[in-house]
Amino acid sequence: MELKSIGRIESPYQCKGDAPRQGIYSKEIMKIHVEPEYAEALKGVAVESHIVVLYWGDRADRSVLRTIPPRRDVEMGVFACRSPNRPNPIALCVAEVMAISANTLTVVGLDALDGSPLLDIKPYVSMLDDSQMHREA
Amino acid sequence: MELKSIGRIESPYQCKGDAPRQGIYSKEIMKIHVEPEYAEALKGVAVESHIVVLYWGDRADRSVLRTIPPRRDVEMGVFACRSPNRPNPIALCVAEVMAISANTLTVVGLDALDGSPLLDIKPYVSMLDDSQMHREA
Repeated sequence: MELKSIGRIESPYQCKGDAPRQGIYSKEIMKIHVEPEYAEALKGVAVESHIVVLYWGDRADRSVLRTIPPRRDVEMGVFACRSPNRPNPIALCVAEVMAISANTLTVVGLDALDGSPLLDIKPYVSMLDDSQMHREA
Repeated sequence: MELKSIGRIESPYQCKGDAPRQGIYSKEIMKIHVEPEYAEALKGVAVESHIVVLYWGDRADRSVLRTIPPRRDVEMGVFACRSPNRPNPIALCVAEVMAISANTLTVVGLDALDGSPLLDIKPYVSMLDDSQMHREA
């Protein structure tokens, strides 16, 4: 299963120590540059909407299966925490779209390091992505 | 960027016509079989918790950039809708864990076809994954 890099994230975070633990803690405005060949797949993405951004944690350690999460003192499996280190380092952030210009999205809410490969963008849909909605469905 | 198959999803859905549009519409109980070599990464996954399941849409069409979503009559980019067809067919469902036995999770809330390769499991965290929380952050 081979992933395609469909774009790059332009971020002020250059190394792991720069980035917050999760995208929600970031107030940084970042740019998502979608490769021109995929630009038409952006049709319908709206300013002020929320999107699910999947990107590749290209500096993650794929061999890690257990870790001690921040503010915890017990070792947990990586499938039970949000560590960037995991067998398939697909990072997931819910971000807000601030502006769109051709094949570039300006967003807030990402924890990505500069140059991270973009994998996918999906619209955020409360009905699908909010577990509270699942309980009520 | 090469993905590892870390498990398989056992589903009653054998072909596209069997599956609902999204996992939230599924009441089917499914099993996620994690490969034994990754089982220790499950430590801490809890029954009754919600998880984000990323799996590979191995029967998706990766060449599709625009589509007409169900119940819509306008063509949209695949980054603006939840079509399974997209350049990197990484499917995302929020599912509820019903039971755990060794390296198998019993869950509800998946739209996966039988045999879909598992890519990642993350704990669902409202603070991170609910856009309403982002507005309030």
